[in-house]
Amino acid sequence: MTDTSDDPHSRGGPPTYVQVGAVTPTPAERARTLVAGMVDGTLSTLALDPEGYPFGSIVTYALADDGAPLVLMSTLAEHTRNLAADPRASLLVAQGGAGAGRLAAARVTLVGTFTEVDAAAQEAATTRYLDVHPGAFWARFPDFVVHRLDIEAIRFVRGFGEMGWVEPHAFAAAEPDPVAPGELGIVSHMNDDHAASLVTMVDAFLPVDGEVVAATMTSCDRYGFEVQLTLAPTQPGGDAGLAFGRIGFEQVLGSAADARHAMVALLRAAEAAG
Amino acid sequence: MTDTSDDPHSRGGPPTYVQVGAVTPTPAERARTLVAGMVDGTLSTLALDPEGYPFGSIVTYALADDGAPLVLMSTLAEHTRNLAADPRASLLVAQGGAGAGRLAAARVTLVGTFTEVDAAAQEAATTRYLDVHPGAFWARFPDFVVHRLDIEAIRFVRGFGEMGWVEPHAFAAAEPDPVAPGELGIVSHMNDDHAASLVTMVDAFLPVDGEVVAATMTSCDRYGFEVQLTLAPTQPGGDAGLAFGRIGFEQVLGSAADARHAMVALLRAAEAAG
Repeated sequence: MTDTSDDPHSRGGPPTYVQVGAVTPTPAERARTLVAGMVDGTLSTLALDPEGYPFGSIVTYALADDGAPLVLMSTLAEHTRNLAADPRASLLVAQGGAGAGRLAAARVTLVGTFTEVDAAAQEAATTRYLDVHPGAFWARFPDFVVHRLDIEAIRFVRGFGEMGWVEPHAFAAAEPDPVAPGELGIVSHMNDDHAASLVTMVDAFLPVDGEVVAATMTSCDRYGFEVQLTLAPTQPGGDAGLAFGRIGFEQVLGSAADARHAMVALLRAAEAAG
Repeated sequence: MTDTSDDPHSRGGPPTYVQVGAVTPTPAERARTLVAGMVDGTLSTLALDPEGYPFGSIVTYALADDGAPLVLMSTLAEHTRNLAADPRASLLVAQGGAGAGRLAAARVTLVGTFTEVDAAAQEAATTRYLDVHPGAFWARFPDFVVHRLDIEAIRFVRGFGEMGWVEPHAFAAAEPDPVAPGELGIVSHMNDDHAASLVTMVDAFLPVDGEVVAATMTSCDRYGFEVQLTLAPTQPGGDAGLAFGRIGFEQVLGSAADARHAMVALLRAAEAAG
């Protein structure tokens, strides 16, 4: 360790990102997928007491067809009384994990106004809520009413330093990624059992500047998957390099179950190219 | 199952709560302990855009000696710009778990105003933050500043339907429970390995109306522990009963390591009484 620099990327600037297959999920798709995959979040309302202060509380939700959160609220709850006085609110939905690592995890803030779902649609909304929260035996108690968040602005943070605004109409139109429910299983299976195949695909498809000594899958979606690459040192005794890449599937997947076939097809193409 | 009632407590009204040993943690102590045991939460601020809407974002924190959260913020972040225009905010800290079960988990909303820690105290505050978040290599970058939340109101929800306000001065004065870091270990050890001893203690100390067939420890703190009790049916073929109880330690514990001695002392006293 004779390198005098503290910068882990001193090997040659920031890590490279390389990609094959053009399609990447849009921020609207990523945000919609995240919200569709969770059932709880933090509601921010404007407090009656202390008046005007933003007030955070925990809520659980289901989603309407257009991705609008449906929240079952007691008329007795602080946040419900706050919303009756001022319907402006936001719902923050954050991907799993807790503690210091949360700044690296994806989250979405849906900003808008809450209104009670009207009487004619209340039963259908309650049923939708109960489909997601079957244990909520209080859902049809008279002091519980489903409220809907009409979204006016969306902040999406994919991780540390990667963030932006998403158009509400794009969020409403986006389809949650059908691979997401099986993503963790795909990623762990590929890393645990097919690490060499990942390197074979990277070698065949990604224009990496250096020798790839290891490839770790970091995510998988309907369009493809992402990898973190360890590169051989460029000189004897030097530091290993780091790069990131994305490899697209030949066809858009309809479900997590399609991943197996798609991976085999990519691997065969890689071997044929190699 | 010939009982025609849907009420699991039909055996005789709501479950009993019985207690021996007077001291129970105050809501201020429970809230302070919860906040001291976590390092991340949801910040609610008043948005600049869309203007005036409450806006939720994820932050990580350390605590000042008086329990005030210290949050490291980038001057570029949405919430930092929001606070520069209006310092009113809240920080929601919620106990672990995610998903539908979150409504049953404890959480605290600390409401107040954020201010930048002044230049003279900034270095100490940054060090305090880094003690809790040693991976935050960006903490001393020039665009990162520690802000302090001066607490004006506190909402504490212990679980479903159990909630109230906590006085900020009581929160500031409360000592985090020294048993909390070891609580899960104590609870699982007692339930896994000493279930019969729990029943012995309950039989000796708690005035339960019925025969206790099982006792499960649900929490442990410096003052004592809480149990959920299964009671024998009061008539052949009837439903089992449910009760809750609290047993106080003979002395207030100074750490989780003191729990072993305290449990043994209680068990011996129970056996002597039996």
